[in-house]
Amino acid sequence: MATEQVELRGHIIDSLILAKVMDVIIDAGADYRLVEVDIGRTNTDQSRAVIEVTTGDDSSLEALLDELHVHGANRIDPGTADVSPVEVDGVLPPGFYSTTNLPTWVRLGQRWWPVGNPEMDCALVASEGQPGEWVARTVPMHRVCAGDLVVVGHSGVRVEAPNRPRGATPFEFMTSEVSSEKPKALIVAEVAERVRRARSQPGAKVLAVCGPAVIHTGAGPDVARLVAAGWIDLLFAGNGFATHDIESNVLGTSLGVSVGEGTVVEGGHANHLRAINEIRRYGSIAAAVEAGYLRGGVMYECVRAGVPFVLGGSLRDDGPLPDVITDVVAAADAMRSLLPGVSVALMLASTLHAIATGNLLPAWVETFCVDINQAVVTKLADRGSHQALGVVTDVGLFIRGLCDQLCPPA
Amino acid sequence: MATEQVELRGHIIDSLILAKVMDVIIDAGADYRLVEVDIGRTNTDQSRAVIEVTTGDDSSLEALLDELHVHGANRIDPGTADVSPVEVDGVLPPGFYSTTNLPTWVRLGQRWWPVGNPEMDCALVASEGQPGEWVARTVPMHRVCAGDLVVVGHSGVRVEAPNRPRGATPFEFMTSEVSSEKPKALIVAEVAERVRRARSQPGAKVLAVCGPAVIHTGAGPDVARLVAAGWIDLLFAGNGFATHDIESNVLGTSLGVSVGEGTVVEGGHANHLRAINEIRRYGSIAAAVEAGYLRGGVMYECVRAGVPFVLGGSLRDDGPLPDVITDVVAAADAMRSLLPGVSVALMLASTLHAIATGNLLPAWVETFCVDINQAVVTKLADRGSHQALGVVTDVGLFIRGLCDQLCPPA
Amino acid sequence: MATEQVELRGHIIDSLILAKVMDVIIDAGADYRLVEVDIGRTNTDQSRAVIEVTTGDDSSLEALLDELHVHGANRIDPGTADVSPVEVDGVLPPGFYSTTNLPTWVRLGQRWWPVGNPEMDCALVASEGQPGEWVARTVPMHRVCAGDLVVVGHSGVRVEAPNRPRGATPFEFMTSEVSSEKPKALIVAEVAERVRRARSQPGAKVLAVCGPAVIHTGAGPDVARLVAAGWIDLLFAGNGFATHDIESNVLGTSLGVSVGEGTVVEGGHANHLRAINEIRRYGSIAAAVEAGYLRGGVMYECVRAGVPFVLGGSLRDDGPLPDVITDVVAAADAMRSLLPGVSVALMLASTLHAIATGNLLPAWVETFCVDINQAVVTKLADRGSHQALGVVTDVGLFIRGLCDQLCPPA
Amino acid sequence: MATEQVELRGHIIDSLILAKVMDVIIDAGADYRLVEVDIGRTNTDQSRAVIEVTTGDDSSLEALLDELHVHGANRIDPGTADVSPVEVDGVLPPGFYSTTNLPTWVRLGQRWWPVGNPEMDCALVASEGQPGEWVARTVPMHRVCAGDLVVVGHSGVRVEAPNRPRGATPFEFMTSEVSSEKPKALIVAEVAERVRRARSQPGAKVLAVCGPAVIHTGAGPDVARLVAAGWIDLLFAGNGFATHDIESNVLGTSLGVSVGEGTVVEGGHANHLRAINEIRRYGSIAAAVEAGYLRGGVMYECVRAGVPFVLGGSLRDDGPLPDVITDVVAAADAMRSLLPGVSVALMLASTLHAIATGNLLPAWVETFCVDINQAVVTKLADRGSHQALGVVTDVGLFIRGLCDQLCPPA
Repeated sequence: MATEQVELRGHIIDSLILAKVMDVIIDAGADYRLVEVDIGRTNTDQSRAVIEVTTGDDSSLEALLDELHVHGANRIDPGTADVSPVEVDGVLPPGFYSTTNLPTWVRLGQRWWPVGNPEMDCALVASEGQPGEWVARTVPMHRVCAGDLVVVGHSGVRVEAPNRPRGATPFEFMTSEVSSEKPKALIVAEVAERVRRARSQPGAKVLAVCGPAVIHTGAGPDVARLVAAGWIDLLFAGNGFATHDIESNVLGTSLGVSVGEGTVVEGGHANHLRAINEIRRYGSIAAAVEAGYLRGGVMYECVRAGVPFVLGGSLRDDGPLPDVITDVVAAADAMRSLLPGVSVALMLASTLHAIATGNLLPAWVETFCVDINQAVVTKLADRGSHQALGVVTDVGLFIRGLCDQLCPPA
Repeated sequence: MATEQVELRGHIIDSLILAKVMDVIIDAGADYRLVEVDIGRTNTDQSRAVIEVTTGDDSSLEALLDELHVHGANRIDPGTADVSPVEVDGVLPPGFYSTTNLPTWVRLGQRWWPVGNPEMDCALVASEGQPGEWVARTVPMHRVCAGDLVVVGHSGVRVEAPNRPRGATPFEFMTSEVSSEKPKALIVAEVAERVRRARSQPGAKVLAVCGPAVIHTGAGPDVARLVAAGWIDLLFAGNGFATHDIESNVLGTSLGVSVGEGTVVEGGHANHLRAINEIRRYGSIAAAVEAGYLRGGVMYECVRAGVPFVLGGSLRDDGPLPDVITDVVAAADAMRSLLPGVSVALMLASTLHAIATGNLLPAWVETFCVDINQAVVTKLADRGSHQALGVVTDVGLFIRGLCDQLCPPA
Repeated sequence: MATEQVELRGHIIDSLILAKVMDVIIDAGADYRLVEVDIGRTNTDQSRAVIEVTTGDDSSLEALLDELHVHGANRIDPGTADVSPVEVDGVLPPGFYSTTNLPTWVRLGQRWWPVGNPEMDCALVASEGQPGEWVARTVPMHRVCAGDLVVVGHSGVRVEAPNRPRGATPFEFMTSEVSSEKPKALIVAEVAERVRRARSQPGAKVLAVCGPAVIHTGAGPDVARLVAAGWIDLLFAGNGFATHDIESNVLGTSLGVSVGEGTVVEGGHANHLRAINEIRRYGSIAAAVEAGYLRGGVMYECVRAGVPFVLGGSLRDDGPLPDVITDVVAAADAMRSLLPGVSVALMLASTLHAIATGNLLPAWVETFCVDINQAVVTKLADRGSHQALGVVTDVGLFIRGLCDQLCPPA
Repeated sequence: MATEQVELRGHIIDSLILAKVMDVIIDAGADYRLVEVDIGRTNTDQSRAVIEVTTGDDSSLEALLDELHVHGANRIDPGTADVSPVEVDGVLPPGFYSTTNLPTWVRLGQRWWPVGNPEMDCALVASEGQPGEWVARTVPMHRVCAGDLVVVGHSGVRVEAPNRPRGATPFEFMTSEVSSEKPKALIVAEVAERVRRARSQPGAKVLAVCGPAVIHTGAGPDVARLVAAGWIDLLFAGNGFATHDIESNVLGTSLGVSVGEGTVVEGGHANHLRAINEIRRYGSIAAAVEAGYLRGGVMYECVRAGVPFVLGGSLRDDGPLPDVITDVVAAADAMRSLLPGVSVALMLASTLHAIATGNLLPAWVETFCVDINQAVVTKLADRGSHQALGVVTDVGLFIRGLCDQLCPPA
């Protein structure tokens, strides 16, 4: 028998954290006893619980504590972090601490140090700057180098439990999903409000992650307006989105469907290849803009406004465009480097890039996943990102509405 | 071995009728030989094919010809119709001819008589008016009466092959479905155009079939505007739609969600019951309108504008409202009686009522099924109605767009 | 300002009841204060909370308490029930108490009386047997009669909070749905276990609610085996299910697809009509069994084993079969009358009948909704029935597995 | 006005080719006239049609002919191929011919040369071996090199129209999708039969493309059995599939769900990272097998049986495993190099890898896309691959059935 006490703090009842922790313990076949419970009396008070967890042996206890950490449960006696050096580049020491995307602190040299860039499923690398001064950062497995000091075990790591935003909202309880049967105009207005609120904070950025259906559904011009009007600070997409955006602006089609007319235009099936080929000839999207070849659309507005973008490669890419980062590990690293400061993320009809982005985001980023397919929305909204909210709707009509809210005609 | 020749006429290539007929024959394990083929040279010319069908025996041939009839294939030698009397009310004679929803003629007394109200899966009842003058009509099984003369076998029945409308359209080839990835603004404009075109024909009616999600998604006021502006001639719905429409106008909520605010209002879960109870107290929706209790919404506008409606009962109904026809057979009969003249049907986020309506419509009614769930759209669009077109989108945003097209603000 | 204290008892943390109650209060724009909290120390201990709720005025407080009742929150001072007589048949007095499907007690004449048959969205009718002896029962709106005494307001009604079954299970936390990505063999085994467990309790019944896809996916023979082997005590379905079951046994097809071969057989499209017509000729399914016309399938096994069934009508019905109750209000009443004793409900690829059944079931019935369409499963599992669990899978393959577990070949 | 005659040969009626060609012409706003039509008299006879196409100008005619080529329509006077040299590596000459995935011939030096490896959306590169002897091959854009001779325009390129396999099958007409309502046991048997038939041809290979849900649904052991029994010749997957396969064999879990028990096991969330880290320590999956660390599962059986696999990288990858090709262009090239000889492709619960693979396959490869999500199946089955057939079902139960058919217990 092995036993340990963990502590939860925050809105642990209404953010469902306490219930989830109990559930994880029971599902693991372990037992709990509530040692202390101090429930906040009102909506704004914080709560606190101390839970004693008992399992069959030390190793299952370690594993369970690891799991509970994801939900914000810290050991009562956190101890001091143990570190172990990396022996081979890209391979972690056994027993490495696997990060959550919650706000995290590490105790090294008797003090707690904040981890600057929380990201799920990374290692914690600690380095001593001046003697006694430690810096701790999340590092993905492939980037650890021989000699890096990596935190191992759970001692000396503390996280802050996630808190769902509360207050009367059109969003639903206990679900990360807005049903297709809810009034969408209200949801559009709420998302617009969240974007406005984010932008009113100094340094806060809005990230858009776009899939090709944004263009197919006719929403390209609306996203372009949002970029031109300064509402989007950062764009992540793939070869498909950028190609169809460029194709529809250069050749007036998306996948051979005329976006203006909705009818198949001549020259259909090879159009996207021709668009890619021309951009390859210019060498980059920016060069094609400069040369006057590309004169409208989302990518054009990004170039004009200096909005940074990452086009991450995928296996199904034709061409690809010269701006696409074909090495996916390098592409994810490029995305990582731009994320600091993002406070709202809009995932628009994207599966692959949205999941990839969600994996990189800290838990506090407000994330809205918009897709017409409920299964995609569920998948996105369920992936660990405690803050992700799915909206099941037609992405073309949704973005039109968002644009009407944020960029009303003069 | 049994053999018969059948004939196809019309746009049998581009409406896929010939291919479908070949497919049915092969799937039945039978053989065909094309005896004559005369393909229209241009887009507007009709084509004609004579096909010799061979099966193992007479009974399988009969069965196969029955199946081919649904696709517009008539016997070369149609013969004369055989009729047999009904012996027991509501029970058809063995071997009864089962109708298609195509334009149909019956040969009785050496002449071809048109069947006035084609409907799928009915019997053909023939009656002699003046001597030598026959009237043929489709009658559902439950309404045949002892003594009615019912057509049996396939002799003497001719149908007209369905023709898909052609021309450059935003709708797709060989599929009865508009993908969720198509530009929806174009589709909305096209549907609005079809409604306008229908209304420009004398006597043509537009039918709306509405599910509760129309109200939940906030589109109730838009449908009410369409009714008030005279775009809807006929409404089919159920207890749920009417209740939530009334509830949202009387109490400002739909299923406990405030449609204005998107937030749950107090008094939620029982609101729909209270709304139903009050209408029951008044005795009918019209009485509640007259008494000033109900002062807005779709049902209110129907009462004011004299737009007839059928509220068909379903097992899950609470209450129900006094206007609901709780006997489903009687409800379907009420729907039937209102269908003559309908030329466009809009199925809006309705499954049950849309399928029920689709079963009753002749093949020539242009039908648009709008739902966010692809599986529902597929189911509706595939059910025999050759003319049904599914649109996968958010019904609330779709109706908003349709309303903007048809009832623009002054 | 209006204030009242409510109490929650049970597994209010891990069944999420406390969090849900807080959520409802905040969503209603009201405030709460936790007056007392006593959290169970271990997994098996019950918890208790007293919450003071404050709203702007008395009427909004009444409405909010009504809402909280659905989640198991009772007033601290429950008072005594007020009753008011029905004046017109089928119309409730204003302010009627609208029932939940939780275990319920009513206080009349200074004592608490249990409500025998909890059902959502009904009235509570109280009648005095012997002086001082009260009987309370749920009565749907349409069945109240002039003179019935109906409980009005919230005083004197107490409910028991729902408790989700706990323990290590393959089912997920906080969601009423099993993802399509979970190992289905385990889920099948778990459902089989729940059925076995239910059957081991004296008097407990298993209800199957079947949609037509059960037959289309080839699972008809498996359901028939389950009926024959005594695992199903009660069957609810519609005209479509029964017709396709009979058609596939009499004519070897379901909707014109040969179930044995998967190929379209001759005589397809009218087959279901012919099957219905023959049963109409016999007068009932039982008569057709007795006459030797129907010799296999689910309906046949129900007749043979004396398993009661309700075939509830729906608007889209062809025929219908003579056993179909075409008045939906009468059909729901027939279903109601058979429900006492049901402890497990299997909803198999049914939407309409499953929702209708779910509305009638008390909260304690374990309900499994199996469908391939996630949206349908979500809809079913979310409808108030706290205990419903959705399984997204292929219903044909699921039932095959269930049958293998419960009726293994000798 | 510009005019040209094109010819279609093959099963142009029942494979819907003629109808599709007419549709493309009308949708492009052009006109057609059928110059000759010779329809095969029976199911096995070929048909032939000559169609005169008229458009407004030469450039729109060129574009339309390009589009018609995808559907198998060749010019009556095919002329001789024009070639143009590549000037910059990876950039095609303007007007390059964009390939279809149909069997293709190029006319160079007065003779027709077959194109060995048809692939959609590539260039045709021609090279002269011995004088007068030409070799033509498809080359993706990124691999053309300065100096390569690329076919430009449409002259001198001929394709063979696709033919859908006919005969009585459980698969449906005009749709590339098996509805979720069809009897799945029949579909499983049919797919097993197609696999057997493929394997009976000398040199024919069966390709499996697997997504992570294969493991999550518990089908990993079944796929491993299929590999071990020699039914799978080639495996394409991603980091997720391989990781969860390895994790479930090394640690007994998939994404923290115990596959044996269906319950969350301790050590959950970081398990996949630990599995990846260990394989990285060994340097490759094969090395981990050799060292005895990995002792079961799909990847293990592939290593043992020498079945080649490509693990293509994607943006969302954790780790990744050392075998993952992180450059997506290189990964697609690796997949390309293994495709010759593939005659059946099974796409199992994979979206990204399935689409990527479908883009690379010639039109004649029989492809089965199995997924529980109808939208995914539709997307896969619709992407140009004329031969792809979608099956909407639970992939875990489907593979279990396939395994029972192909690897019955002794």
